[in-house]
Amino acid sequence: MGSEVYGVIMAGGAGTRFWPLSRERLPKQLLRLSGERTLLEETILRLRNLIPMERLFIVTTPSCARAMMIHAPLVREHLRGNLILEPCGRNTAPALGLSAIHLKQKDPGAIMIALPSDHMIRGSDHFFRALEVGREKAEEGYLVTIGIRPTRPETGYGYIKVKGGISPERGVIPYRVERFVEKPSLRRAKRFLSQGNYLWNSGIFIWKIPVFLKELERYMPDLYRALTRIEEALKEGDLPTIERLYREIEPISVDYGVMERSRKVMVVPGFFQWNDVGSWKALEEIMEKDGMGNVVRGNVIAMDTKNSIIFGGERLLATIGIEDMVVVDTEDATLICPKDRAQDVRKVVEELNRMGSEHSIIHWKMERPWGSSTLLMKEEGLLLRRITIKAGSSLKPKEEGMEGDFILLRGRVRISKGGNVCEKVSDGGLLSLGDIDEIENPMGRPVHLLEVLSNSKVLEEAKIH
Amino acid sequence: MGSEVYGVIMAGGAGTRFWPLSRERLPKQLLRLSGERTLLEETILRLRNLIPMERLFIVTTPSCARAMMIHAPLVREHLRGNLILEPCGRNTAPALGLSAIHLKQKDPGAIMIALPSDHMIRGSDHFFRALEVGREKAEEGYLVTIGIRPTRPETGYGYIKVKGGISPERGVIPYRVERFVEKPSLRRAKRFLSQGNYLWNSGIFIWKIPVFLKELERYMPDLYRALTRIEEALKEGDLPTIERLYREIEPISVDYGVMERSRKVMVVPGFFQWNDVGSWKALEEIMEKDGMGNVVRGNVIAMDTKNSIIFGGERLLATIGIEDMVVVDTEDATLICPKDRAQDVRKVVEELNRMGSEHSIIHWKMERPWGSSTLLMKEEGLLLRRITIKAGSSLKPKEEGMEGDFILLRGRVRISKGGNVCEKVSDGGLLSLGDIDEIENPMGRPVHLLEVLSNSKVLEEAKIH
Repeated sequence: MGSEVYGVIMAGGAGTRFWPLSRERLPKQLLRLSGERTLLEETILRLRNLIPMERLFIVTTPSCARAMMIHAPLVREHLRGNLILEPCGRNTAPALGLSAIHLKQKDPGAIMIALPSDHMIRGSDHFFRALEVGREKAEEGYLVTIGIRPTRPETGYGYIKVKGGISPERGVIPYRVERFVEKPSLRRAKRFLSQGNYLWNSGIFIWKIPVFLKELERYMPDLYRALTRIEEALKEGDLPTIERLYREIEPISVDYGVMERSRKVMVVPGFFQWNDVGSWKALEEIMEKDGMGNVVRGNVIAMDTKNSIIFGGERLLATIGIEDMVVVDTEDATLICPKDRAQDVRKVVEELNRMGSEHSIIHWKMERPWGSSTLLMKEEGLLLRRITIKAGSSLKPKEEGMEGDFILLRGRVRISKGGNVCEKVSDGGLLSLGDIDEIENPMGRPVHLLEVLSNSKVLEEAKIH
Repeated sequence: MGSEVYGVIMAGGAGTRFWPLSRERLPKQLLRLSGERTLLEETILRLRNLIPMERLFIVTTPSCARAMMIHAPLVREHLRGNLILEPCGRNTAPALGLSAIHLKQKDPGAIMIALPSDHMIRGSDHFFRALEVGREKAEEGYLVTIGIRPTRPETGYGYIKVKGGISPERGVIPYRVERFVEKPSLRRAKRFLSQGNYLWNSGIFIWKIPVFLKELERYMPDLYRALTRIEEALKEGDLPTIERLYREIEPISVDYGVMERSRKVMVVPGFFQWNDVGSWKALEEIMEKDGMGNVVRGNVIAMDTKNSIIFGGERLLATIGIEDMVVVDTEDATLICPKDRAQDVRKVVEELNRMGSEHSIIHWKMERPWGSSTLLMKEEGLLLRRITIKAGSSLKPKEEGMEGDFILLRGRVRISKGGNVCEKVSDGGLLSLGDIDEIENPMGRPVHLLEVLSNSKVLEEAKIH
């Protein structure tokens, strides 16, 4: 029996690299790229097989946390009390330091597995095996990181050089680290691949909390001091002081601040399939392609189109004779660029922010587990949304940040209002329902409503949709 | 004093080449590509300086005529009685033959100027000069066509070879035609340009009606016979017979059927700027470019984008690092292709028709002189449109094919209903107005309404929007 293991999922990302699908209010970890679940929820479900839910924590910012309540039902239902809130984003060293002092209060000798919320992992057995070996080594007092066996000369990832060299026949065993390497040129990446003693830096860490804090004290004394003061303020529940102290912290990654300097670092090679889903181009690696090498989703006609990523929705997207392109279409914005320019989408987001445009912050249309919400109009104190509730689903408007009155367009709904439940039917006229606690669609097909929010009710928080 | 001159504008085009901006219900001649007016209205206004409105006719199909009533106010207000209806499209020889027998009933010796409705012409003085010289020659019994002095080795146009050669210093004089040439290869087009005795075939014709009918009788005897029988049926008002006869006619162009064979043909060189606006690529010639060689319209962010045509609307269109591309974005569909594939857009339209998709027929959003109409929903017997009326504008719903009830979202309107006029105000609630004869926006800013059409009212004709 060793120390208890806690999971800390880092979910503070801003989500600029998947614009226009991701927005400030819908960062990458909350996208459903490959299925029904968000990347964050997939991360939680993966870990749940190893760590019970009550010992899973999410470190994130308040605005990200609000978005999770809407887009990640798994978090809303099971992890609402397990959020560690950073007052603002300060990169991974402060986020993990803050997480460590939170967990220390529960279990001072705990082992912490820290991992990103927005990566794709396939091959759970290999993943668990690597974490298990890492846990054993952490128990011995090491800072353990998981390195991924590279399968191609990738220039978009950082690398870890292993001391001595890796012997795959010896299986999953820990290695000493010689050094961390920043994203290399293609030439260097090819050399790394052929030398065989380099691993991809996955950003997954395992350590005992007292060991991690000790190393923070040695290599990042300013951060350690701030964390000590935050720990005291935490005990007193002094939120303004925590916020002030945290804002003053310098943003530094835990790789740069601790892992590259500490002499207690070991790496465990992971033999699972891993992708950091760093840009639209990454979908080529993780999604299925058609016969022409295209990744296609949504309402698309792709003629003579090759090796492209065509990501559409309800609207029609028609491409003719294009190659190696990324086309992403949403209700309110469309992106078109060559695949090798996909990382520059953040420049568009910067430009939108500079212009004060909402296109970087919110979506017009939001898919939800219960259906969808589409912004039809927002101007001069009037906001109009079309709400579609799937057959058999129900919606609690307040939980979704919906503040308006509802109008039934057509169909039958069951509504709850101040404890009373009743059925309402409309045959195509507009039936006003007022504001409601819950709306249920008992029918076998979708039901459509309008949400109308007028005058002073059109508040800033309505932007969350 | 010679014969009276009548104008016949050919406006039966199907509008596949400007998809997704053009649709079956909004063909190219009804697009506002370069300004406030549709191409058809620009053609009318250009001719009006030469021919009084009462002698201007439009030959078109019933479905095109319906679309004109909505999109071309100039036609609705002034030329409603001057439409010559082809029961179906049968190319230019039958359309002009039908026009000739219509005009013959008004004025048997009339001169007819026939011209396409969807071309761009700049330099009216030169245009009028060419028509005037053509008219003089038509008076003498010739079939006159206007040829355009080529300015580049265009491979997208047909050419006319002039007998002997053209002397620009002799000005606008008629020439004998040696032969008509189909769209040439680039090599041949370059030779035509350097030889100097080739003109672009503009599709503009001038002739006396009896001369034209005589040549039809000689070179297209089947068509002539059908027209003679249609003429008799016209006198008796026997529409079913006209329809049956017209449907049986073989579709042939007047160039191929008459002009290339007749020995009475002359060509007048036009020195005006002309473009047949044959595909999205043509916009490069007729619209202004930015410093990077792009034609840009609408809500667009174009980063490192060169020599492209980026045609957007209200939605945001972001391009990064693209070159020589066409991107056209509408409310419900987006097209992306290299410029040199722009003509293949018709293949997309064919595919949509094959699939039974409405994306080739109607638009979700329609711009109108008085504002705009956007389809929000159409399913299960319910149609919902958002109607925006510009400041100071008014709308007669019935004229626009709007059959629904209206709801005022916000603002003040003046409505007429069965002869009564009253003002209605809404501060953001939904104020039901019912069905209305006319709605006026007396305010200084746009006013928004919803149109709701339910159950049996959702008729096929509602598709026209």
